[in-house]
Amino acid sequence: MIAKVSKQASQEQLNEIVSIIREEGVQAHVSHANDGIIVGMIGNVTSALQQRLQQHSVVQAVNKVSKSYKLASREFHPENTVIEIGDVRIGGGELVVMGGPCAVESAEQIDEIARLVKAAGGQVLRGGAFKPRTGPYSFQGVGVEGLIMMAEAGKKHGLLTITEVMTPEYVDICAEYADILQVGTRNMQNFDLLRKLGEIRKPVLLKRGFSATYDELLNAAEYILAGGNKDVMLCERGIRTFEGYTRNTLDLSAIPVLQQLSHLPVISDPSHGTGRRELVEPMTRASVAAGADGLIIEMHTDPDNSMTGDGVQSLFPDQFARLLRELEQLAPILGKSFNTAKAPAEQFAVSAHA
Amino acid sequence: MIAKVSKQASQEQLNEIVSIIREEGVQAHVSHANDGIIVGMIGNVTSALQQRLQQHSVVQAVNKVSKSYKLASREFHPENTVIEIGDVRIGGGELVVMGGPCAVESAEQIDEIARLVKAAGGQVLRGGAFKPRTGPYSFQGVGVEGLIMMAEAGKKHGLLTITEVMTPEYVDICAEYADILQVGTRNMQNFDLLRKLGEIRKPVLLKRGFSATYDELLNAAEYILAGGNKDVMLCERGIRTFEGYTRNTLDLSAIPVLQQLSHLPVISDPSHGTGRRELVEPMTRASVAAGADGLIIEMHTDPDNSMTGDGVQSLFPDQFARLLRELEQLAPILGKSFNTAKAPAEQFAVSAHA
Amino acid sequence: MIAKVSKQASQEQLNEIVSIIREEGVQAHVSHANDGIIVGMIGNVTSALQQRLQQHSVVQAVNKVSKSYKLASREFHPENTVIEIGDVRIGGGELVVMGGPCAVESAEQIDEIARLVKAAGGQVLRGGAFKPRTGPYSFQGVGVEGLIMMAEAGKKHGLLTITEVMTPEYVDICAEYADILQVGTRNMQNFDLLRKLGEIRKPVLLKRGFSATYDELLNAAEYILAGGNKDVMLCERGIRTFEGYTRNTLDLSAIPVLQQLSHLPVISDPSHGTGRRELVEPMTRASVAAGADGLIIEMHTDPDNSMTGDGVQSLFPDQFARLLRELEQLAPILGKSFNTAKAPAEQFAVSAHA
Amino acid sequence: MIAKVSKQASQEQLNEIVSIIREEGVQAHVSHANDGIIVGMIGNVTSALQQRLQQHSVVQAVNKVSKSYKLASREFHPENTVIEIGDVRIGGGELVVMGGPCAVESAEQIDEIARLVKAAGGQVLRGGAFKPRTGPYSFQGVGVEGLIMMAEAGKKHGLLTITEVMTPEYVDICAEYADILQVGTRNMQNFDLLRKLGEIRKPVLLKRGFSATYDELLNAAEYILAGGNKDVMLCERGIRTFEGYTRNTLDLSAIPVLQQLSHLPVISDPSHGTGRRELVEPMTRASVAAGADGLIIEMHTDPDNSMTGDGVQSLFPDQFARLLRELEQLAPILGKSFNTAKAPAEQFAVSAHA
Repeated sequence: MIAKVSKQASQEQLNEIVSIIREEGVQAHVSHANDGIIVGMIGNVTSALQQRLQQHSVVQAVNKVSKSYKLASREFHPENTVIEIGDVRIGGGELVVMGGPCAVESAEQIDEIARLVKAAGGQVLRGGAFKPRTGPYSFQGVGVEGLIMMAEAGKKHGLLTITEVMTPEYVDICAEYADILQVGTRNMQNFDLLRKLGEIRKPVLLKRGFSATYDELLNAAEYILAGGNKDVMLCERGIRTFEGYTRNTLDLSAIPVLQQLSHLPVISDPSHGTGRRELVEPMTRASVAAGADGLIIEMHTDPDNSMTGDGVQSLFPDQFARLLRELEQLAPILGKSFNTAKAPAEQFAVSAHA
Repeated sequence: MIAKVSKQASQEQLNEIVSIIREEGVQAHVSHANDGIIVGMIGNVTSALQQRLQQHSVVQAVNKVSKSYKLASREFHPENTVIEIGDVRIGGGELVVMGGPCAVESAEQIDEIARLVKAAGGQVLRGGAFKPRTGPYSFQGVGVEGLIMMAEAGKKHGLLTITEVMTPEYVDICAEYADILQVGTRNMQNFDLLRKLGEIRKPVLLKRGFSATYDELLNAAEYILAGGNKDVMLCERGIRTFEGYTRNTLDLSAIPVLQQLSHLPVISDPSHGTGRRELVEPMTRASVAAGADGLIIEMHTDPDNSMTGDGVQSLFPDQFARLLRELEQLAPILGKSFNTAKAPAEQFAVSAHA
Repeated sequence: MIAKVSKQASQEQLNEIVSIIREEGVQAHVSHANDGIIVGMIGNVTSALQQRLQQHSVVQAVNKVSKSYKLASREFHPENTVIEIGDVRIGGGELVVMGGPCAVESAEQIDEIARLVKAAGGQVLRGGAFKPRTGPYSFQGVGVEGLIMMAEAGKKHGLLTITEVMTPEYVDICAEYADILQVGTRNMQNFDLLRKLGEIRKPVLLKRGFSATYDELLNAAEYILAGGNKDVMLCERGIRTFEGYTRNTLDLSAIPVLQQLSHLPVISDPSHGTGRRELVEPMTRASVAAGADGLIIEMHTDPDNSMTGDGVQSLFPDQFARLLRELEQLAPILGKSFNTAKAPAEQFAVSAHA
Repeated sequence: MIAKVSKQASQEQLNEIVSIIREEGVQAHVSHANDGIIVGMIGNVTSALQQRLQQHSVVQAVNKVSKSYKLASREFHPENTVIEIGDVRIGGGELVVMGGPCAVESAEQIDEIARLVKAAGGQVLRGGAFKPRTGPYSFQGVGVEGLIMMAEAGKKHGLLTITEVMTPEYVDICAEYADILQVGTRNMQNFDLLRKLGEIRKPVLLKRGFSATYDELLNAAEYILAGGNKDVMLCERGIRTFEGYTRNTLDLSAIPVLQQLSHLPVISDPSHGTGRRELVEPMTRASVAAGADGLIIEMHTDPDNSMTGDGVQSLFPDQFARLLRELEQLAPILGKSFNTAKAPAEQFAVSAHA
C-alpha cells in the first residue's frame, strides 16, 4: 500500500503519519514525487489503519501498489535511487563505466588492467574471482586470492571494484574485499543468495536471468530490498532467443522499461549481451542512447589467451579507451555526464588488431 | 565466386576481365573495396574459367563466397549500397526518417499527417493501403484508393512514399503509386513475392521476419537482388521472445551485424519493435547510436482512434517533431547528418497527453 | 454470436431459426453439441435480431463468441469436423498417416515411394512439387511436372495425395492434381493465399508458423473457413526456440490445446518438428498419445542423396513400415483405429542402416 | 578418455587394466556395452598411460570422449543407470510415478494425499517444504516441519519421498528426511548446490532449467556425478518460449535425446510443463510414449485453495487415479511395466469437476 501525502505537508505532519504506520508494526518508506510525497507501507495494512490515514488532513489517498514487487517499484518510490560509493554516484546522471577481465588471473594481470581502466576514464574495476562455469572441468576462478588481488589493484589505481558472488556463504568475504557485489545471470533466482545480500550493506548489481522477464527481475530485486539493502542496481545482459549469431540478444528496451517501472539504476552489459568483440562498441553507444546509467564492459590485455575462453567478447585496451572517449562526446547530448581521464592516448599499447 | 583485382588495374583491364566472365554465360558484378576491386560472379564458374582469370595479370585471387547469399554479402560487394530516390540518399550517411500512420484511413487523414511529417523534418511518408491482419474480421486497409491518397499527399508535401505490398499480383500497382515498397514481417519468406519484387525497379524495404535469423533475412534479400533489383534495404522490427511486456524485442545488434555481413542499408522500426509509444523515443535514439541508416516510425493525429488499433505504438505529432529535433543533435556525434525542417514548433497542435 | 437451441427442437423449428437469421443477411452455421444445438452467426447481428431469436420458444440463449476466430472455434461448432476424402476420414477416430519424400524428384522415385507408403499402411502420399527454400540458389522443386507425377503415383497405388501450394496463382492447378493442399509454415500468414484457399473445395492442411501462437494459427484457419471451405486440418510442425540440437521444438501440447479450442482435426509432423531421423519414431508415438488425428512423415528411399538436403530427417522405408506396425498396436489403447496393409515385411528392401 | 576392452577379457584382465589406470592417479569407471567393455577415465591421462593401455592384449582402442561432460555421457557409460531405492527401480523398465502437492501444507493434508497416491498406484510422494517463489511476499513453504510431516506420511503409506532443496546448507537435513532430493529449474546452474549434492549418497532429480539446452543440463548433472554421487535422474519440465497459452512448452524430444546422449533415467513433469490441469493427462501419455522412465505429477485434494496458487495445474485425486490406470494399459505396449494398486475405484472421493 502507499499513502499519497500533500506536497504542502510539514515535516511534523509527515512524521506523524510515519508514526501512525509504525505503531501498527508496518514499515514506512518515504519518497518524494513531483506532485507530492509517497509513504510506502510494507506489512499488514489493516482497514483500520487505512481509515486512520485517510482521515489525516494531509493524506490525499491510500492505494494498493499494482505490482507484486513494492520497494522496487516506481509507484512506491518515485525518486530515482542514487547509489553513492566514495565519490562515484550511480543513477544520478553521471555515466559509470565498469571495466576489466572476465576473470582475475594473476596479480600482475589485474594490476595492469586496473591501470588501463583508470587511464581510459573508467570508475570501477570488474573481475571474477569465483566463476560460474557450465561444466565442472572448466577453470573455476582463483577464489579468495583473486578477491585480494583485485582489491589491491583497485586501491592502487583509485578504482572501485565489483565481483560476482555465487553462494550465500561467500557473501561476507566478497563484501569484505569488493565495493559492489554482482549476482550473475544464472543466480538471479537463487533466493537464498538474494536474502543474504539483503542483510549486508554493500551495493549489489543484479543481472537479469537470461530468460527472466522484467517482472521476475524486479521481484528478485525485491528480495534484496526487503532485507533492508537499498543499494541495488539492475543489469541487462542479454536474453536467450532463437538467434544464434550473437551469444545473447541484448534487449535494450529493458533500459527504459525498468527505469519506468522502478527507481533503481540500470546498467548495460554489451559484452555478454552480444558475445562478440566487434559489437561491443555500437551496443555500448546504443545502451547509453537508450538511457543506461552505466556500463559493464570486458577488457583484457591478451583476450585470445584469457583463462575463461571469453576473450572473444573482450575489448583490447586501446579499443576500450577509444570507446570511452566516444562516450564523452555522446553523454552530454543524452543528458548524462562522463569525463575520461586526461590520460594521453600514447599510454595504450599498440595492439596487432588495430 | 569472387575475383580480387588489383587497385592498379586500368579500366580496360577490368573490362577485359568482365568480358571473359560474361563469355562463359556467368554474371559479373563489379564493386570497389579499400584494397582492390571485387568482381562477383553468379553462375556456373567452371575450373577452366577460374584458371583463365587467375592467369590474368591484374587478378590477385579467385575465391568462393563463404555465405549462402552472394549478392547481398559484403564479401561480394564491399562498398555500401546507397539508394538514391529523388534527392534522398539512403545508406550514404544521411539519416532517413519515414513517418506516418499504420494505415491510410482517408484523404484528409493522410494529407494532414504528411504535412506534419514534412514539417518535422521527415523525408518519407509511410502508410498502409493493404494491411496484413491476424484475423479475417479486422480492418484490412482501404486498398488501391489508399495508394492514390497517399501518393497525392506525398506529392503535395514533398515527401517520398512507402507502402506495404502483400502479394505478387499487387506489386505492379503498388510500384506505380509508391516510391518504396515494403515487405512485411509475415512475408519475409513469401518467395514468390520476393521474386516478383526482383523484377521491378523500385526500392524495396524488406522487414525481418519476427523469428527470422540474420542469415534468413539476407537470403530473402538475395531473392530480390538475384532478380536484378539492386535497391534493397533491410529493416529490423523486433523479434518474438518470451518477454511479453513489449510486443516484440527490438534486436539492435542486428544493425551492426547486418552492416558487417552486407552492404545494404539498415532501417530500424522502433514502433513495431516495442509496441509501446513511451519506448519509441529511447529506442529511436538507441537505433541511431547502433548505426541505423534510417528509421520508420508510426505517427498518428488521433492514435487512440486509429482504425487498426495500433495507435498504442504511434507517436503524437508533437512527440514525433520533438524526437526528430533530438536526432538532429545526435546524428553528427555518430557520423551521420540529419536536418529537420525549419518549421516553427507552434505548428504542432497541442495534444492532450503532452 | 451463437444461439443455443434446445435439443428438443424439431427440424422445422430449427429451419425457422435459420430463416430468421438469413433474412437479415447474416450467415447461419448449425452444429450439434452434447447438450443442445448451436447456431453460429457471422455478420451484423443487430440487437433486433438478437431479440427476435431470444423470443423464439426453443432458443435458450444468444451469446458472443469469446475468441477472435469464430468458425474455427469449438464454442461456435461443438462437433468434431470430420473430413472425408474417398474412403479416408480425417478427424473421425481413424489415424491417418501421410508419408513420402520432401520433394518429388522423378516419376520413378515417387512411384516407388508410393508403393512403399501403401504397403506400409499409409493412406496419403506427400511430396513437394514447389519447394519453399531459404535461398534462391537451392533446388526449388520440379514444378507442375511433379504434380502430375505424384497424381499418377497416387492413383496407381491407391493413395490420396497432399502437396504444398505457395502462392495464390498456383492454387487452382495444385487443386486439380492433389487431394489435399498444404500451407507451409512460412505461409501461415500469407493472407491472400489463405483467402484463395477459402474459395476452393479441396481440403487444406494448414501448418503452424514456426513462431505462431495457437491463437494466430486458429485465426489463419478462420481466413480459409470464412471463404466457405470447411475442410481445414491444423498441423503442429515444431516451433523455433533457443534449443539448437533439434531443428525445431515439437510442441505436442498444441494437439490437446487445439482440439479443445477448435473442432478441426490436428495432424503432427514429427519429421520437421525434430529434424532428426532418430527422433521421428518416439515423437510419432508421443503425437498419437497426445491425441493427434494423423501424422505427416518424411520417408525416402535414398535419404542421404535427397535433392533438398532434408534427408537427415527422412525415415528409410523399413523404418517407416516398422513404425506404422507399432502404431497399429498403440492406436486402440488411445481410442483410435489404425490398420496397416497386410503387406509381408519382406517387400521392404534391406537398407544399409538397419 | 575411454578405453574399449574386448568382451572376451577375463575379470582378472579387467582388474589389471583398472589397476594400471589408478596407479597413475586417474579415476576408472567400468561399464558394459553390447559389443564390449568401456573403461572411462577422468583425470590426467598422459600419453604414456595411453600407450601402456594400448599395448594391453584386451584393449581394443583408447579414445577421447567427444562431449564436455564425461560421466554423464552414453559414450563413457553405455549401460543404462538404474537407481534402486528400496524396492523401486528407476530407469530399469518399470514406470515410476511421483505424485503429490506442490507444497506440504499440513500433516493432515500430506497424510491424506499420500494415502491417495499410494491407492492410485504411485511409488513416490512429492511435496515441497522449501518453495522457490518469484517474489518475497509469497508463501515460502513450511520448512523443516514440512520435511518431517512428509517423511511420516511416506513411511505410513509405504511411499518413497522427494523434495526440493534450494541451497547447499539445507542439503544435509533434506537428505536426512527425504529419499530423493530435487533440484528445481531455477537452480540447475547453482553450481555450489550441485557440488554439495555430489558429496551425498542420496539420489537426485535434476530439473532442466527453463531455458537450458540439453548440453547445459548434462553438464549440470556432471557436477553431481563428478562429486561421486552416481544416482542422478534428469527431468524435462518445460521450456520458456513465445507461446503464452501454456505456462511452459513441454519439450518431449528431450526424452529420447537425453536417453541417447546419456545413460541417466529421464523423468517428465507434465504439471509444470503445461501449467494447465486439462493438459496433464494427454501430456503424461505422450511422455510415456516418448520413452520417459517416470513422471512427476501434481495432485491436490483441494487444488483451488492450494497455498502456492499452483492448484491450476494439479489433478484432482480421481483424475490422478484414472490417469494411472490408463498408464497401466499403455506401458506394456511401450516396453515398460506399471501396476496400479488393487485399490477399488470407490475410495476416491467424487469431486465436483468430474
